[in-house]
Amino acid sequence: MRTAAAYLESLSDGRVTYFDGQRVDDLLGEPAFAQAARVVAAGYDRFYSPEPGARNPLLTAPTSAAGLRERALMFPEIDTALAVTLGSLMTLLTVATRSALPQAYQDRMLAFFEQATVQDARVAECITDAKGSRALRPAKQPDPDAYLRVVGRPPGGVIIRGAKLHITAASLCHELLVMPTKSMSPGEEDYSIACAVPLNAPGVSVINTTYFPRAPDSRHFPVSGVRSIPDGMVIFDDVFVPTDRVFLDGETADAAVFAHSLGLWERAGGMAVMAHDADELVGLAQLIAEANGLERVSHIREKIDEMALYATLLRAGFEASVGHAVVSEDGYYFPSELYTNATKYYGAAHYAVMVRHLHDIAGGGVLTAPTIGDLENPQTSAYVRKYLQATDAVTGEQRMRIFHAIRDLTADAYGGWHAVTNLQSGGGLYAQRLVLRKHYDMARAKELGSRAAGLQS
Amino acid sequence: MRTAAAYLESLSDGRVTYFDGQRVDDLLGEPAFAQAARVVAAGYDRFYSPEPGARNPLLTAPTSAAGLRERALMFPEIDTALAVTLGSLMTLLTVATRSALPQAYQDRMLAFFEQATVQDARVAECITDAKGSRALRPAKQPDPDAYLRVVGRPPGGVIIRGAKLHITAASLCHELLVMPTKSMSPGEEDYSIACAVPLNAPGVSVINTTYFPRAPDSRHFPVSGVRSIPDGMVIFDDVFVPTDRVFLDGETADAAVFAHSLGLWERAGGMAVMAHDADELVGLAQLIAEANGLERVSHIREKIDEMALYATLLRAGFEASVGHAVVSEDGYYFPSELYTNATKYYGAAHYAVMVRHLHDIAGGGVLTAPTIGDLENPQTSAYVRKYLQATDAVTGEQRMRIFHAIRDLTADAYGGWHAVTNLQSGGGLYAQRLVLRKHYDMARAKELGSRAAGLQS
Amino acid sequence: MRTAAAYLESLSDGRVTYFDGQRVDDLLGEPAFAQAARVVAAGYDRFYSPEPGARNPLLTAPTSAAGLRERALMFPEIDTALAVTLGSLMTLLTVATRSALPQAYQDRMLAFFEQATVQDARVAECITDAKGSRALRPAKQPDPDAYLRVVGRPPGGVIIRGAKLHITAASLCHELLVMPTKSMSPGEEDYSIACAVPLNAPGVSVINTTYFPRAPDSRHFPVSGVRSIPDGMVIFDDVFVPTDRVFLDGETADAAVFAHSLGLWERAGGMAVMAHDADELVGLAQLIAEANGLERVSHIREKIDEMALYATLLRAGFEASVGHAVVSEDGYYFPSELYTNATKYYGAAHYAVMVRHLHDIAGGGVLTAPTIGDLENPQTSAYVRKYLQATDAVTGEQRMRIFHAIRDLTADAYGGWHAVTNLQSGGGLYAQRLVLRKHYDMARAKELGSRAAGLQS
Amino acid sequence: MRTAAAYLESLSDGRVTYFDGQRVDDLLGEPAFAQAARVVAAGYDRFYSPEPGARNPLLTAPTSAAGLRERALMFPEIDTALAVTLGSLMTLLTVATRSALPQAYQDRMLAFFEQATVQDARVAECITDAKGSRALRPAKQPDPDAYLRVVGRPPGGVIIRGAKLHITAASLCHELLVMPTKSMSPGEEDYSIACAVPLNAPGVSVINTTYFPRAPDSRHFPVSGVRSIPDGMVIFDDVFVPTDRVFLDGETADAAVFAHSLGLWERAGGMAVMAHDADELVGLAQLIAEANGLERVSHIREKIDEMALYATLLRAGFEASVGHAVVSEDGYYFPSELYTNATKYYGAAHYAVMVRHLHDIAGGGVLTAPTIGDLENPQTSAYVRKYLQATDAVTGEQRMRIFHAIRDLTADAYGGWHAVTNLQSGGGLYAQRLVLRKHYDMARAKELGSRAAGLQS
Repeated sequence: MRTAAAYLESLSDGRVTYFDGQRVDDLLGEPAFAQAARVVAAGYDRFYSPEPGARNPLLTAPTSAAGLRERALMFPEIDTALAVTLGSLMTLLTVATRSALPQAYQDRMLAFFEQATVQDARVAECITDAKGSRALRPAKQPDPDAYLRVVGRPPGGVIIRGAKLHITAASLCHELLVMPTKSMSPGEEDYSIACAVPLNAPGVSVINTTYFPRAPDSRHFPVSGVRSIPDGMVIFDDVFVPTDRVFLDGETADAAVFAHSLGLWERAGGMAVMAHDADELVGLAQLIAEANGLERVSHIREKIDEMALYATLLRAGFEASVGHAVVSEDGYYFPSELYTNATKYYGAAHYAVMVRHLHDIAGGGVLTAPTIGDLENPQTSAYVRKYLQATDAVTGEQRMRIFHAIRDLTADAYGGWHAVTNLQSGGGLYAQRLVLRKHYDMARAKELGSRAAGLQS
Repeated sequence: MRTAAAYLESLSDGRVTYFDGQRVDDLLGEPAFAQAARVVAAGYDRFYSPEPGARNPLLTAPTSAAGLRERALMFPEIDTALAVTLGSLMTLLTVATRSALPQAYQDRMLAFFEQATVQDARVAECITDAKGSRALRPAKQPDPDAYLRVVGRPPGGVIIRGAKLHITAASLCHELLVMPTKSMSPGEEDYSIACAVPLNAPGVSVINTTYFPRAPDSRHFPVSGVRSIPDGMVIFDDVFVPTDRVFLDGETADAAVFAHSLGLWERAGGMAVMAHDADELVGLAQLIAEANGLERVSHIREKIDEMALYATLLRAGFEASVGHAVVSEDGYYFPSELYTNATKYYGAAHYAVMVRHLHDIAGGGVLTAPTIGDLENPQTSAYVRKYLQATDAVTGEQRMRIFHAIRDLTADAYGGWHAVTNLQSGGGLYAQRLVLRKHYDMARAKELGSRAAGLQS
Repeated sequence: MRTAAAYLESLSDGRVTYFDGQRVDDLLGEPAFAQAARVVAAGYDRFYSPEPGARNPLLTAPTSAAGLRERALMFPEIDTALAVTLGSLMTLLTVATRSALPQAYQDRMLAFFEQATVQDARVAECITDAKGSRALRPAKQPDPDAYLRVVGRPPGGVIIRGAKLHITAASLCHELLVMPTKSMSPGEEDYSIACAVPLNAPGVSVINTTYFPRAPDSRHFPVSGVRSIPDGMVIFDDVFVPTDRVFLDGETADAAVFAHSLGLWERAGGMAVMAHDADELVGLAQLIAEANGLERVSHIREKIDEMALYATLLRAGFEASVGHAVVSEDGYYFPSELYTNATKYYGAAHYAVMVRHLHDIAGGGVLTAPTIGDLENPQTSAYVRKYLQATDAVTGEQRMRIFHAIRDLTADAYGGWHAVTNLQSGGGLYAQRLVLRKHYDMARAKELGSRAAGLQS
Repeated sequence: MRTAAAYLESLSDGRVTYFDGQRVDDLLGEPAFAQAARVVAAGYDRFYSPEPGARNPLLTAPTSAAGLRERALMFPEIDTALAVTLGSLMTLLTVATRSALPQAYQDRMLAFFEQATVQDARVAECITDAKGSRALRPAKQPDPDAYLRVVGRPPGGVIIRGAKLHITAASLCHELLVMPTKSMSPGEEDYSIACAVPLNAPGVSVINTTYFPRAPDSRHFPVSGVRSIPDGMVIFDDVFVPTDRVFLDGETADAAVFAHSLGLWERAGGMAVMAHDADELVGLAQLIAEANGLERVSHIREKIDEMALYATLLRAGFEASVGHAVVSEDGYYFPSELYTNATKYYGAAHYAVMVRHLHDIAGGGVLTAPTIGDLENPQTSAYVRKYLQATDAVTGEQRMRIFHAIRDLTADAYGGWHAVTNLQSGGGLYAQRLVLRKHYDMARAKELGSRAAGLQS
């Protein structure tokens, strides 16, 4: 297994990364990347074992409902690069054991799974294509590269071209797991390509965006200053992929199984995180209500109750999802598609109103609380402490820090990233609804309705 | 155990029942009661066993999570009188095993439980008082009878006076389980009374309301014509209760445990029924969409998806509630208070919008579909068949019957009863929110919030 | 002008009407029709003037914004038959002055307008067809009569066949204004028919449904016992219509203008009624809160505030709609399509939640309040008075009557009719959204968006 | 009148301003202030007239409904410092003409109004106090300065101490209009203080926060890079105020009139801005839907319709508010309190969901669109153009800029500021509900409810 130090060193492998219009030669020299890298590194040390052949226990498939639940409960607490690696590897395992792909592909997937686990690599999920015109199929686009595709077949591999968008943590991983973004039709063989690509392969480059705080002093960003990690638009400009890293190549009928599998794990992860974050939001609401001295006011309590209800329903959905896991032929436990999707949808759809409740409870201090710098400045320090204190139980500094956390999480750059990611991860509300529809037992519902109408005995 | 016939006979026991301004001497002679009585009677035959000492298996406490789940799944399918009996008896058991009441009370409760089970009695839940002015405590009311109370203590028992409101199935049960509606304070000893009273005890009378269809021909009421059962306002006009039927008398500190226990079972039952009814609503929505030939239209599908989401979240809450059951010292399994309340609240709060979706999907035929009589009338029959048919797959008659079921369940007298009962059973949205608040783990939420704010290491 | 007595007499004109599977020979002998007929008759007396040539002032087009507002404010207070007559006649006027139909049609419409006004007739709006399969155009239906059509063209007129559904007050009007339900395409000439048909024309029959209370004693139905009026499915079984009553015949391109015009007046009427009803709902909520002694409780007040907000926004929409009226070339004032549709949609979409608030505020007494009969029965009268009284300010009888009104309006048969009618009148939420889309100034919105994005100077 | 140049010069008046823990000596040298100052300066030039005695026409009270409407329509387009000045001066005028304060106060207010107008000053609204413990009255606080108060009364004036929070544009104005934040009771005379204080008065200091973009290159912040303006926490550390600038001093009964008047103008301004912003949001939704090639997809259209509905209802409320203006005794037109509050509340309450719709429509590009820098970097420029283009009609650069605008307005720092400000300006949802309650005609509503219940003839 890799240590934190080994991970940080591994980033200097020639990868091509851009940020704010510049090439970033040294990731550790650019604050937005350095902080994220340190967090990923800490994740290495957390799970490190010097035993020969040791592996990160998270990167193995659960074989019981309890094991699935345990892993899912850990999910909100691990770093983002490890989280996407988990999603990538579980997707490979799901595809290998559930699809009807030729044995050769299955062997390659399991071999890559093994290799990535042994090398303790971080593997980004690369799925969303540029897509061009949404009204046209991949093979009918004016720009044939709107969906990533095979543009050449030299001996020993394929050459791919295209872009993958919204790739979480791309610049901080070692491998890119490339998959078709949706089902493919006959004639779209070149677009039916799945494979693994090292980040430093020739032709790969990443254009990053970040929600890391940009102020000179970022101490009033207690969450994003720690948790944020750049997203990337990954360009594949005629990249060669050797055959043993190709997991699908031309089998249009099987293209969708990658997206479906990844979707399940993405939404399951999203559900776990949302359930955790919802409790965090409730806690912040209660803390600021107490710091404001308003925790007994009826309308404040009702809003906190609404938030607790939201958090509890997410938790109920989470429990139903892992408690009613589906078992594969190989004995692996996968979360229930039905409950996972319903819960993820509910969480995403109602998050905006929960944030509104939090803002309504907290008040304008979310926006106008001074900074840690103002607290330290001898000219303003006493004012800040004096005028931000509302009750004996909470100091002005504590109240200020709660305001900072609320602002950072929900009313600043990272808050916006959070809100959009909640909605869009796993495919936007509409896509999530489609998956729910697919798994809901409509036949039973119609039977109940028919009975009520006296149409059946 | 009792048979259906024995049950019907048992109703002629002198009970005093009023309806529409008249005393009802013969319950079986008044359609609104006769139909309900027949349904209750069928429930007897369903569970009847001629074995000596046999008991209704539902009327015993579950001793495993699986047993609790099995019972909860049956709940939506049993008759209302059996359902309230189950709630009454489980409440007694919960109080007997969870409260710190003196042994004598516990013994009497278990004895009554035993007797009622052996006699296969139906036991109504009598909790809500008239309440008078809500701003005043029970002992401060202008009319001291606004809450039911002890008005005399002759040898061998107590005399009670007051009224209990909204008593489901009262006129069709054998026993009334009387309980305080809320916590009591010192000085309210006379109001701290719980006991069992036979329906035909002198001084007891019931004023009924019903949502049974009143039209001469009720065949276009396929649901309420079968399922509706009268509610009663039960008057206790100086009723004597012997000591062995008294379960609380003056212990103000213990008054609330009855309401809390009943509340749990009521809300658990409500949750089970709502989860079942939600699937039924989805089924009716899909059936009428198909009958209208509109099931592929995007906005129709989205509304059905929203309904399926609602049904699935209720089901998830149900599964979390029974899957995370609480075990009492005696080994009985009770549903999780947290998940039960959150689920019941969610179900009640969103029901109105689900019904709106159903009406939006179905169209005006919900209101204006002709009756079975019009279908049979030779002057109109052909018109009805011709103009109500929309697709080859569904006849005009079938479509008409689906409209009838939707109207009866959601847009007619029974629909109104259903909507209000969904909200008010278990105490109205506000009361349900209070219970959620009590069981939500706020300490953990605050810990998460504090960590985000950097207030704790 | 007609008097009430003359109106009641006019109903005996041989019209063919069915109800509950029977032909109704004497409308005044069937309670559900007799009560409605008396209300319509009272509407005649209200506006009667013995002056020769006098006309109902409502049945003329407004020529100022103030006149339009005045009429719209009266709308919620007039009887339903007069309301639909107003809609029918304003539609004719709108079509005559706004469409490009040949002069002959315009002349006939204005002549019919004149004749109906002079004769003080009541004119039902007949628009919705049976529709058959929604996925198919009118001319492609398996049953060619799924949309009303011309089946013959004898000298001097046309013969029509089909059914019109959901026709408010049909059996109590004198004339049926028949219109295409939507736009028509070339090849659908026979379906492009608009005309006026007397209710007693040979071949016309009506199958009625009603939400009039069916209990022997209907005094606990204070609203529906007065306001409800039968809806009808109107059958046209080869009905001859003379040419001078034909307003469109084969001009497919002009078919939609009738539906658009009627839609505007229907939605404008619906908006006026909803704004009025919303204030009524608020009033009932406040009355029952006071009768329950709960009007100062925080969560109760907040729910009433939400209802008042709803009512105020409807009123604001109403004021914007009449204040920003559109003036036709002839100087007639029509309500603003944009504001009318937005307001109608908002009112319909949120009505269900407002009713939920009312039920949540009111409590279970909505369902279980005894009847006036129970109040009068000497055996129960004292109980009812005693136990329904909650505060000094409101008697038990008054509280009971408020419960009755809430139940009747929102939780009983008429309440269901009300809820569905609110949604479906003017075409269901989806159709209303389409009209809003058509009238919203998207070009201006895009200009603002472009400016924000820096795309235009 | 002042020119832009004169305004910029006027800022160097010794004012004490802090930002990020530092004293800001030169406002024009700090980008977050300099940009805002330039926007305020442009507002001066826009209304400048060289005529002697010329005044900004906005800073006079409207004397007709049309004049009020015209001003309100301009509101969303003026700079923030002018907007708060307008609010401050209209508040003074309202208090002077509506309250029963002694003539001396009224004279001083009108004199200040005159002076500020003639000098073309910018006047900040200083109302919200630090508030300390919300459960305690101002005079009962542990820290007596939790509400701003008079701490000394030397000859010729008063000395005040305290802090005013959330003061928009404070550092960029010339005057601070100080007012009590709520009603005061006997014993709170020292807290009943209203006055005007120059920003550079000894003892005044401002601690600022900002949502101005902090990245080195801010071109991908097309909105906040232009519109954002620092908020300030204003400290009054024993500031002397001469008597002729004191507008209330000890009259507890009149303290609330300032807050009520300011509230009306704040909410009216908020309403005007929200109506404008709502159309802007709709426009961005439509632009990005078109740029994504998805504008014809049903669920996308429905979400845009929902947004257009929201925008239209806000516009309707705006029109009702100015169309039903209230006229003061002096002939000034004030917006309707009822419609203003209802509209502001509706706008604030539903904003979060409208933003969710926009994010749902737009997709992940909101977060991950590259920057203008990436567009210009020759190494990435072609990739950005190629992979961001979706349809022929919109270039990749245009689509990128639309994403930037959506992110900046709704999913980045300024978006968070916007969301919280929408909610909190004018006092949070609860306070806005209280005002609505006060102005809603409950007597009429109860009369309608009573009629429905048959309680009145």
